[in-house]
Amino acid sequence: MRLAIDQERLSRELETLGSISSEPAPVVTRVVFTAADLHARDFVKGLCRSAGLELREDAVGNTFARWIGADNALAAVGTGSHMDALPNGGRYDGTVGVLGGLEAIRALQRSGFQPRRSIELLVFTSEEPTRFGIGCLGSRLLTGSLDAAAGAALKDASGESLDGIRASAGFTGSLSSVRLPGHYYSAFVELHIEQGPILEQHNTDLGVVTAIAAPASLRISIEGEGGHAGAVLMPDRRDAFLAAAEISLAIELAARSTGARDTVATVGVCQVFPGAINSIPSRVRLEVDVRDIDNDRRDAVLREIQAKITEVAARRKVRSHIETLNADPPAHCDPAIVETLVRACQTHGLSFERMISRAYHDSLFISRIAPAAMIFIPCRGGVSHRPDEYATPEAIAKGALILAETLAELSK
Amino acid sequence: MRLAIDQERLSRELETLGSISSEPAPVVTRVVFTAADLHARDFVKGLCRSAGLELREDAVGNTFARWIGADNALAAVGTGSHMDALPNGGRYDGTVGVLGGLEAIRALQRSGFQPRRSIELLVFTSEEPTRFGIGCLGSRLLTGSLDAAAGAALKDASGESLDGIRASAGFTGSLSSVRLPGHYYSAFVELHIEQGPILEQHNTDLGVVTAIAAPASLRISIEGEGGHAGAVLMPDRRDAFLAAAEISLAIELAARSTGARDTVATVGVCQVFPGAINSIPSRVRLEVDVRDIDNDRRDAVLREIQAKITEVAARRKVRSHIETLNADPPAHCDPAIVETLVRACQTHGLSFERMISRAYHDSLFISRIAPAAMIFIPCRGGVSHRPDEYATPEAIAKGALILAETLAELSK
Repeated sequence: MRLAIDQERLSRELETLGSISSEPAPVVTRVVFTAADLHARDFVKGLCRSAGLELREDAVGNTFARWIGADNALAAVGTGSHMDALPNGGRYDGTVGVLGGLEAIRALQRSGFQPRRSIELLVFTSEEPTRFGIGCLGSRLLTGSLDAAAGAALKDASGESLDGIRASAGFTGSLSSVRLPGHYYSAFVELHIEQGPILEQHNTDLGVVTAIAAPASLRISIEGEGGHAGAVLMPDRRDAFLAAAEISLAIELAARSTGARDTVATVGVCQVFPGAINSIPSRVRLEVDVRDIDNDRRDAVLREIQAKITEVAARRKVRSHIETLNADPPAHCDPAIVETLVRACQTHGLSFERMISRAYHDSLFISRIAPAAMIFIPCRGGVSHRPDEYATPEAIAKGALILAETLAELSK
Repeated sequence: MRLAIDQERLSRELETLGSISSEPAPVVTRVVFTAADLHARDFVKGLCRSAGLELREDAVGNTFARWIGADNALAAVGTGSHMDALPNGGRYDGTVGVLGGLEAIRALQRSGFQPRRSIELLVFTSEEPTRFGIGCLGSRLLTGSLDAAAGAALKDASGESLDGIRASAGFTGSLSSVRLPGHYYSAFVELHIEQGPILEQHNTDLGVVTAIAAPASLRISIEGEGGHAGAVLMPDRRDAFLAAAEISLAIELAARSTGARDTVATVGVCQVFPGAINSIPSRVRLEVDVRDIDNDRRDAVLREIQAKITEVAARRKVRSHIETLNADPPAHCDPAIVETLVRACQTHGLSFERMISRAYHDSLFISRIAPAAMIFIPCRGGVSHRPDEYATPEAIAKGALILAETLAELSK
């Protein structure tokens, strides 16, 4: 088997996909079921058809493109990622796994390889939480991690339901039909940019992911007492924002104090009411994301945060309310696939590093129903979720090559 | 002279004025030059005409209602306050000084008193900074504290200029004509709710204001680096929001550490960009209000805040920029008027307390061109700038009585 990635074509296709956006270049904004998302789906489905793949879409818009193997009755080997992009996002998050996965299949076709198991490219719907407030919507439904009724009840910020929105986009049928049957995949491998700086810093070709951290997300509401910024003396105040500031710094400290570099916590949202320069803040809403690859350690951080909120609220005489938006457990990758990836890197003379994924991926959910692993491509400065997100064509091609080699091995 | 305040009528007029709002009761929102503000002006001008006062409006809408004295060529005695209300405001802030001032004049008329100096009710335009980002717009222009050209260049959030907006509201002519001539007022007394809890806590009838604290307002911009909430390790972060949280707590500490209860500082605005749960904050804007009655002490707090911002920015590797929105010096009230107010309280058997105003008032600016002082009315729980702002009809009537007695004394 002589495998060769068409790096130029893959780059061109990534460029084209990156230009399909609700906002002018270089910004990529492609929120699920908007015109930009539907346009991107059409583009990729066209490429899949040209490659002779068999297309299927489910009720929530997850798209399956299958290269039929010699024994199509066997569980398939899957690969894929997502194409939706959060506002002000970049061109590589997700897309390298979709178009790189397709190019891996085309490279295998060109090499004359004939798979025994079918090889299937899967494009997940709405990995980003932008529209419905929940990440990995497609993979949650595929794996039964989100109940179909709970999924149907999801609403976007304008109050429109997922059911209404997907119907307008042409995706109908019951959400309960989305769940995959048992043993649908014998293995799943997702190619993705690292979204962190480690591979670049170590000058390593690729990352072989051994575990995927998962976020616990909290919404913290703090209610104090408003008033005139000039008239209420400092000791008489119950300032909701100062309580929020203390809590936010305590969250940072809790994440930094576990002794593990894999613990991260972020306060990404802080909304202050009434938000006037001459008014003491009466209400604040914080949204917090805590991740780790060790579930117990993450839960210990969550308990520490809760204790600190209670302490700050009592001392500052404010009321607090904590809502857990989600708390998915982290996943460990399949050791056999990891070793297959390692051998592929060695075969092709590429340097690699075993690492954990600190970002959230659809593979986190797929790993609940199938052996799964991931390949990471270095990205410039570790930057992601920004228009200046970048990975070199060479690095992406190396990832697609190792993916192709691995899909071949797993489909034999 | 037998002075009697018509408490019932005054309460009814305050109720009516409170119902003129852009939002449903009990919320009062009456932003300058909106339909609600113009409606309120018509209501009050009608009452002034009924009292036989001579009306005049200037180019920015400051409204003068004069009871002509025996010697109208002498500098007049002024009283008054504002009627604009910030969003989600209450019914008493400013309005008790307008309608209470009018009732004081009517009580003097009913008593048969004949003033030597004219007594003038002044309704100031836009004491609240809501629309143009600058408080005390009318009194700044009246006293030359704001240059006419700088005033004309002010814009609201929609980008419309003050000149265009006041013209649509019927106020034309050059803003430079607003400035009052020297010795226009021989004295000025403003009646206002306390907007703080002290009088209620001490069960005191009225406050006699001896000094007015003034705010310094800062806008602090912090720029760090965004990124994925899962992927960037804690030590590699340059989180703009955590820097802002530290700075905000340092601002609180600076205000609490002066040893003076009169120092207050508030972070009322905190805007976080991009503001997504899975993104590290890259930019934050804080707006800060620092007040004191002692200018040197306030400036020392400002220096401490600046030093802390520099320290936090260096340690957290973020960039910071501080813009001073305004830094008006505090004012001391005229000792002779203060003593006149004290004697009036004694004459009428009312308890009183000498106190400072921690809120900002038009009298702060008027004190630059005339001897000025203020009377404070207790308000429930010290609450202001909120729909549940409340002062009893009895307390307001006591304030109007002392105002009437004082206006009589000053106009003799």
